[in-house]
Amino acid sequence: MDNRPIGVFDSGLGGLTAVKELLKILPHENIVYFGDTGRVPYGSRSRETIMKYARQDAAFLKTYDVKMIIAACGTVSSVAENLGDGLGVPFTGVLRPTAEAAAKATKNRRVGVIGTTATIRSGSYRRALAEIDPGIEVFDQDCPLFVPLVENGFISEDDEVTRLVAQRYLEPLRQAQIDTLILGCTHYPIIQQIISKTVGKQVTLIDSGRETALFCARTLREQNLLCGREEEGDRRFFVSDQIEGFSKIAGIFLGCDVKNGVSHVDIESY
Amino acid sequence: MDNRPIGVFDSGLGGLTAVKELLKILPHENIVYFGDTGRVPYGSRSRETIMKYARQDAAFLKTYDVKMIIAACGTVSSVAENLGDGLGVPFTGVLRPTAEAAAKATKNRRVGVIGTTATIRSGSYRRALAEIDPGIEVFDQDCPLFVPLVENGFISEDDEVTRLVAQRYLEPLRQAQIDTLILGCTHYPIIQQIISKTVGKQVTLIDSGRETALFCARTLREQNLLCGREEEGDRRFFVSDQIEGFSKIAGIFLGCDVKNGVSHVDIESY
Repeated sequence: MDNRPIGVFDSGLGGLTAVKELLKILPHENIVYFGDTGRVPYGSRSRETIMKYARQDAAFLKTYDVKMIIAACGTVSSVAENLGDGLGVPFTGVLRPTAEAAAKATKNRRVGVIGTTATIRSGSYRRALAEIDPGIEVFDQDCPLFVPLVENGFISEDDEVTRLVAQRYLEPLRQAQIDTLILGCTHYPIIQQIISKTVGKQVTLIDSGRETALFCARTLREQNLLCGREEEGDRRFFVSDQIEGFSKIAGIFLGCDVKNGVSHVDIESY
Repeated sequence: MDNRPIGVFDSGLGGLTAVKELLKILPHENIVYFGDTGRVPYGSRSRETIMKYARQDAAFLKTYDVKMIIAACGTVSSVAENLGDGLGVPFTGVLRPTAEAAAKATKNRRVGVIGTTATIRSGSYRRALAEIDPGIEVFDQDCPLFVPLVENGFISEDDEVTRLVAQRYLEPLRQAQIDTLILGCTHYPIIQQIISKTVGKQVTLIDSGRETALFCARTLREQNLLCGREEEGDRRFFVSDQIEGFSKIAGIFLGCDVKNGVSHVDIESY
């Protein structure tokens, strides 16, 4: 039994979709979230820069004595797979849990992957799936407009703009007759109904935030690190840029109001 | 007569639309361009951070002994108006030249302004127009999806996605019966045909890159700083993030191929 908080970080606020799943699966756990909004997006940075940023993000979370760290960020998970070495607490990115869930879900072994340009270009999901099952055929597609569409509120199920963009990006995946689609970016669950309609309702969507939250719960259980609390856990949110507007956009990702507000962190000092 | 180069900087590559205009108006001038692609976007940063970045950008350009500095960046122009103090060379942002051109162009004194959320929220165009002519009524609208649409190539004149987004953003301006519209972001000229169709062909579009280039030419002429070269000027491009892919996106903004390639700068060291 361990009452310390779980630490979650992301380059921005997309990682809150993983927190949303944690709240459902582990409602009694305390959570510390850091969103590096001052240095977002990581996707276009060099490998060295991303590693440096990710180490600072983890170092900040460690000041809150966290019992596990989740990089709820597709880019960090793809680029900084060995970040966990030397952290001294269990660590996971979104990549492994998500790839494993997809390999388990597919029946025809035709799996689609969508993500930011950096994530798709890194080939990380392609490699992870090949390691799990070399017989899986992977069809990937970057969808660079999905993040700005979500962040600017083009998220209603019948939004014509988002539907058109989704059609343009996803038509090749539909034609490839995938039966499983990895949502390889934490923003994408917000528009999963549009994505599902576009690729076909028969395609199983794998939500990287949800799979990572499930993996976190399994890890804590196995290592006897679940908390002993009976009341709802405490959640603290930190960002590295201005805190105005956080509640509104956080509400989109969390699907609920942010009660405790948010604090600013000078992340460069970690 | 002065053969030193003109320095132009932007938070990213949008400022190249100003360079495109400079190439037309002052083809014999040498130009040094710096795009801070490693720290883009500036729009969400704090005022202090933007000032610090802009000073570093100008300091880098000064190492090339430039004779004038242009901040071809809506955010810097709006936030760091006094950046020119102490630079020792003429300086301009895009704000003043653009507001003056709009005030001159309008007949019914109903002027629209579109830009990034940071630019519109700053109210800078509203203030600049009020100073020039308090009788001008200003109608402004942020268009946060235009930059990602342009950067991801949704720029063809009949692109249905961009047309729909433009309709959603610009319908209130059309209804306000503006006769002049400021394109307050250097990305927007790329989709000016769509913008023009949406607000109505009778509306005069004011391109901030073009007006700033014209202002630069006037300043150099007045201060006797034009070059004496007869052959085409030399252009050098620098960015602070990875240089892969620069030529392709630079081509979109410049409307021509980048011959000399691009170099990387460690901007934090300036």
